Amino acid sequence: MKAVLKPSRGPGFALTTVPDPTPAAGEVVLRVEAASICGTDVHLYEWNAWAASRLRPPRVVGHEMCGEVVAQGAGVESVRLGSRVAVETHLVCGHCPECRRGDFHVCANTRILGVDVDGAFAEYVAVPAHNTWPVAPGLPPELGALMEPFGNAAHACSYGRLRSQVVAVFGCGPIGCMAIGIARADGASRIVAVDRNPYRLELARAMGADVALEASAGDEAILEAAGGPLDCALEMSGAPAAVAAATRLVRPGGWISLLGIGDAPATIDLSRDVVMKGLTMYGVTGRRMFSTWEQTSAYLADGRLDVRPLLTHHLPLADIEQAIELMRSGRCGKVVLDPSKLETALT
Amino acid sequence: MKAVLKPSRGPGFALTTVPDPTPAAGEVVLRVEAASICGTDVHLYEWNAWAASRLRPPRVVGHEMCGEVVAQGAGVESVRLGSRVAVETHLVCGHCPECRRGDFHVCANTRILGVDVDGAFAEYVAVPAHNTWPVAPGLPPELGALMEPFGNAAHACSYGRLRSQVVAVFGCGPIGCMAIGIARADGASRIVAVDRNPYRLELARAMGADVALEASAGDEAILEAAGGPLDCALEMSGAPAAVAAATRLVRPGGWISLLGIGDAPATIDLSRDVVMKGLTMYGVTGRRMFSTWEQTSAYLADGRLDVRPLLTHHLPLADIEQAIELMRSGRCGKVVLDPSKLETALT
Amino acid sequence: MKAVLKPSRGPGFALTTVPDPTPAAGEVVLRVEAASICGTDVHLYEWNAWAASRLRPPRVVGHEMCGEVVAQGAGVESVRLGSRVAVETHLVCGHCPECRRGDFHVCANTRILGVDVDGAFAEYVAVPAHNTWPVAPGLPPELGALMEPFGNAAHACSYGRLRSQVVAVFGCGPIGCMAIGIARADGASRIVAVDRNPYRLELARAMGADVALEASAGDEAILEAAGGPLDCALEMSGAPAAVAAATRLVRPGGWISLLGIGDAPATIDLSRDVVMKGLTMYGVTGRRMFSTWEQTSAYLADGRLDVRPLLTHHLPLADIEQAIELMRSGRCGKVVLDPSKLETALT
Amino acid sequence: MKAVLKPSRGPGFALTTVPDPTPAAGEVVLRVEAASICGTDVHLYEWNAWAASRLRPPRVVGHEMCGEVVAQGAGVESVRLGSRVAVETHLVCGHCPECRRGDFHVCANTRILGVDVDGAFAEYVAVPAHNTWPVAPGLPPELGALMEPFGNAAHACSYGRLRSQVVAVFGCGPIGCMAIGIARADGASRIVAVDRNPYRLELARAMGADVALEASAGDEAILEAAGGPLDCALEMSGAPAAVAAATRLVRPGGWISLLGIGDAPATIDLSRDVVMKGLTMYGVTGRRMFSTWEQTSAYLADGRLDVRPLLTHHLPLADIEQAIELMRSGRCGKVVLDPSKLETALT
Repeated sequence: MKAVLKPSRGPGFALTTVPDPTPAAGEVVLRVEAASICGTDVHLYEWNAWAASRLRPPRVVGHEMCGEVVAQGAGVESVRLGSRVAVETHLVCGHCPECRRGDFHVCANTRILGVDVDGAFAEYVAVPAHNTWPVAPGLPPELGALMEPFGNAAHACSYGRLRSQVVAVFGCGPIGCMAIGIARADGASRIVAVDRNPYRLELARAMGADVALEASAGDEAILEAAGGPLDCALEMSGAPAAVAAATRLVRPGGWISLLGIGDAPATIDLSRDVVMKGLTMYGVTGRRMFSTWEQTSAYLADGRLDVRPLLTHHLPLADIEQAIELMRSGRCGKVVLDPSKLETALT
Repeated sequence: MKAVLKPSRGPGFALTTVPDPTPAAGEVVLRVEAASICGTDVHLYEWNAWAASRLRPPRVVGHEMCGEVVAQGAGVESVRLGSRVAVETHLVCGHCPECRRGDFHVCANTRILGVDVDGAFAEYVAVPAHNTWPVAPGLPPELGALMEPFGNAAHACSYGRLRSQVVAVFGCGPIGCMAIGIARADGASRIVAVDRNPYRLELARAMGADVALEASAGDEAILEAAGGPLDCALEMSGAPAAVAAATRLVRPGGWISLLGIGDAPATIDLSRDVVMKGLTMYGVTGRRMFSTWEQTSAYLADGRLDVRPLLTHHLPLADIEQAIELMRSGRCGKVVLDPSKLETALT
Repeated sequence: MKAVLKPSRGPGFALTTVPDPTPAAGEVVLRVEAASICGTDVHLYEWNAWAASRLRPPRVVGHEMCGEVVAQGAGVESVRLGSRVAVETHLVCGHCPECRRGDFHVCANTRILGVDVDGAFAEYVAVPAHNTWPVAPGLPPELGALMEPFGNAAHACSYGRLRSQVVAVFGCGPIGCMAIGIARADGASRIVAVDRNPYRLELARAMGADVALEASAGDEAILEAAGGPLDCALEMSGAPAAVAAATRLVRPGGWISLLGIGDAPATIDLSRDVVMKGLTMYGVTGRRMFSTWEQTSAYLADGRLDVRPLLTHHLPLADIEQAIELMRSGRCGKVVLDPSKLETALT
Repeated sequence: MKAVLKPSRGPGFALTTVPDPTPAAGEVVLRVEAASICGTDVHLYEWNAWAASRLRPPRVVGHEMCGEVVAQGAGVESVRLGSRVAVETHLVCGHCPECRRGDFHVCANTRILGVDVDGAFAEYVAVPAHNTWPVAPGLPPELGALMEPFGNAAHACSYGRLRSQVVAVFGCGPIGCMAIGIARADGASRIVAVDRNPYRLELARAMGADVALEASAGDEAILEAAGGPLDCALEMSGAPAAVAAATRLVRPGGWISLLGIGDAPATIDLSRDVVMKGLTMYGVTGRRMFSTWEQTSAYLADGRLDVRPLLTHHLPLADIEQAIELMRSGRCGKVVLDPSKLETALT
């Protein structure tokens, strides 16, 4: 089959031919119908320090996916052949203390599809049946692929009540924009979006932000847009300045979900902004297995929350280089690859 | 009556004579039987930046207290004359959004006894009846005075489960040491105490720490003492290095209560240590009104938790200078003043 | 002033003239702009066993109200003259264990406006300033009066998540219908309403129920309407049969809020329907003070939830007999009295 | 191997010889070192209506067990040969909505060891590796076998805070008595035990009950023993009268865990005792997988909680009839079988 590979240590991907996967016991093979690109894939392409420390080439990359079940390994009973599924990309061990406690999302032995095992930028992929999640009939595959990052957003939003709350979302990449959509659907009274990138601020508005502000606008502008202190903040940027702003601007007794991954440690006036204000901060990684997926399905089944404005680009698998370039430009929402299309769309 | 006063802007206190207080409507007057010294009182004495920005002299200082009700203002029915009470030192407004929500402990209009209104380093003090808490019959006044800071410790400990957990307490001043006692009484499986001050580490051991470590010992020493990653941490020092260590050492999915007030912002690798580990951090200020007091009473009524090792010094009110000196030396636990003794104990 | 009085022990009310109230310390006097009738008022009129055991005539009745602040007692600072307020009708003691714990809604010393102290079916009423809640500018007085029972509904709905849940509401009186509106606004995926009264089922549909069923329809009909087991149930009828049905129909791990007050004890197969299914049942009384009010205000400020279909009848105070008659007929939603209108509207 | 079998439909067990089990993929085989008898086993013996509706003979019975891992099926990596393990006896499907939500304990497809698949009253038993839980080194096998019912008790106790609370335990069978031990270890301020059986009341006292009362003693006696209303109740009897008493005696805002399985529906004055008091009732079935097991291990590792007084009888497997007889007499705590002893201990 055709697959996008990290062929060897160093920058770049290769579109190449590899053997079709076969399902081990407990696994299913999917015919990939849609696979979207995550910022992590760009890090793998660029071969940053984290990528170099973790990925062992050759490896088929890609982890946001939706596909049709075309083969089952031994012992698989709960997933039907021919059904369409999305995939939880964290393969957890099930027996470490965190897994036993039910905190699967922080399993220390997590293996990630497309990083530690072969992934989804390919015509076919083998995944544990346990990691599949049925996609509602009629939901297009590109929305199925979106469920994995959407789950990150839902997990971040699940920490506290959003109904009738004044919310700021710092960082308006796809996950931030999905969080805006969730806050809107959950009845937030006012949503302020903050980012440096005008393209993303436009997406934030499309997803339901009442006000979308340049990150340079400053605390006063955020407070004015919010109509007073924030009830809560969703930190999706990883920018140390955004984290610090969130702690300053949330009201006493409020909460912050921290999801963004940054390049540098953050410096926070904890005494003034967290201790004396009685804030709670919750670190968000992955998705709760599988309660987040249940919520995610429900959001997508609901007419109120339409994430399609975020699906800005669709490309054949052959145009992976173009797709990565788009991601690096910042002038896109979600870029979705169609592995059934092996010819370039470019001329 | 005799009282310890901040007489004017600048360092120092004055032991002087002021008029006896009279109870306004809704207030009671206490004959102060014991008043203990808080780090805040030392800041007021030293007249640091915070003190200079907040306190308007002349002001009777002192806020940790226990006394007998000797007079009642109009409308006071729930507090009996002659009863012994401790006092919640945060006078909250009752009508701001935080108060209406039940988050009285973060009321933006909080006035503090001994800072914003006259306090307890005096023979008598007037306080709202609503802020009094009955002291169990037979509990000595110095333990009643301790209930206020003990409530801070109980509030910090209340965020999550301590039973069978591996806990580290960073900062072993009186509140940290009381938290150690609570963790012990609540059934923590292992308690590691960390401080720079050998005197305080000794108190930590007396209160039940399994291991008490010099702050310079480093992460490896704490992990070794704990027998692995921490389930949770109680940050009572405010030291940025301690906050960062807590986030590094708590296991994925664990929690941290932040109570210590530091001089400098803390720099934390939020991405690695909070986001990717899925930690929760809870800022602790004051006491929940009055559920924390209910818990505090119960702890003190319980034979398992003995805080008397922390009551290291008892002095007459007249020796306030000596008491402040002791506090600054770091060679004490709680220093308790007895306002009924007006003669110096020093020769 | 004119007022509706329970003049003496026995059935009936009297429209009569009584002295205008004057505000005690901490109280305000309202010019009542709207006062709605609760089922409790009908019990007082009929003089049922509960009424006979509790109310000491003469007493001005009525407790759902909205009005303008026209006088302030001593010490009232937080409520402005001329402002429009709704009123929490439970006057709590503030010093019993439940109040100290923050569970004001179950204060054992609760006095109820219009039952234990003079109420709102009158031109003026005196209430503690602490019990008032500001009504948003522009909100009509009849919606302000509705906030008190609406708070009961919001309290019942607050126990668990409603977003994307399958909900049944048993009992479609005004509180049940308001709960339907809340479930709709909170994003319930499907709402099944159950009642015996066709008029109320029609109101339930108007408030957003997907299906409204006769109580006699039985379990199968409810399951079919719900599309499977319920995620949760809101029991607003007090009918023992409804409570038992709720426990049978909610899925394992689900929850039930119990708010309805019934005439007879309920017989439940706890072993099969609660224990082995791991259900949680939450008894709902009054409103959380004042977090429920904060939520209530937010719902009413929100365009998504329109409770006006429930305001089916408006009558002058003079037509109290007619109003009670309407309530007894079951052919009404909320009946609102206007105490500024002293002439009958009937001819 | 020797095994205790339900040989055919009808009362009685048979001690017989059956083939040794072999481990399927994902399973381990245990050499059973201890197996204790549950009330459910007595129901199976007696062939009550539930047993007749569920068990399909022939079936090896018994589900409370501890043993040494002596064989591993394909794919088993996390459980070491030679290690000692206890066993979660609910085999859950992993893919129903409840499992996916993390509510494994209410999986609708649960198969029970010793009921739906062959169990532990035998020399060997095959169980899914996932269902094993490592037993601390040095813990005797009979305590390992006890971990399963102990987990029920821990689950019931986990609903709310027990520290400094006044608790009543209705029903002092082994699970009730273990709950008493947990309440004691968790720092309950006062524990009142209630049962009809004097033998069990004695065990309750041994496990830490402050007062142990005959069930016929009545509400007043319980209140007197408790020193006032209960903060919470643990209902372990299933007796309708006990459930009703619990709802009457718990204070406003308190909680009740319902674990006991009764023969008849309970009649409760929900309006007066649950709704108007704002109680919460939580149905307890099985154990949270596997957070309850983590807690259970910690309790047993803790010197404070000694469950050995409950291990009143040890018998060889050959004396199963005698063991069942003991259980029916009510004059025992836990009866533990040792399957390595095949000769009767009786003469």
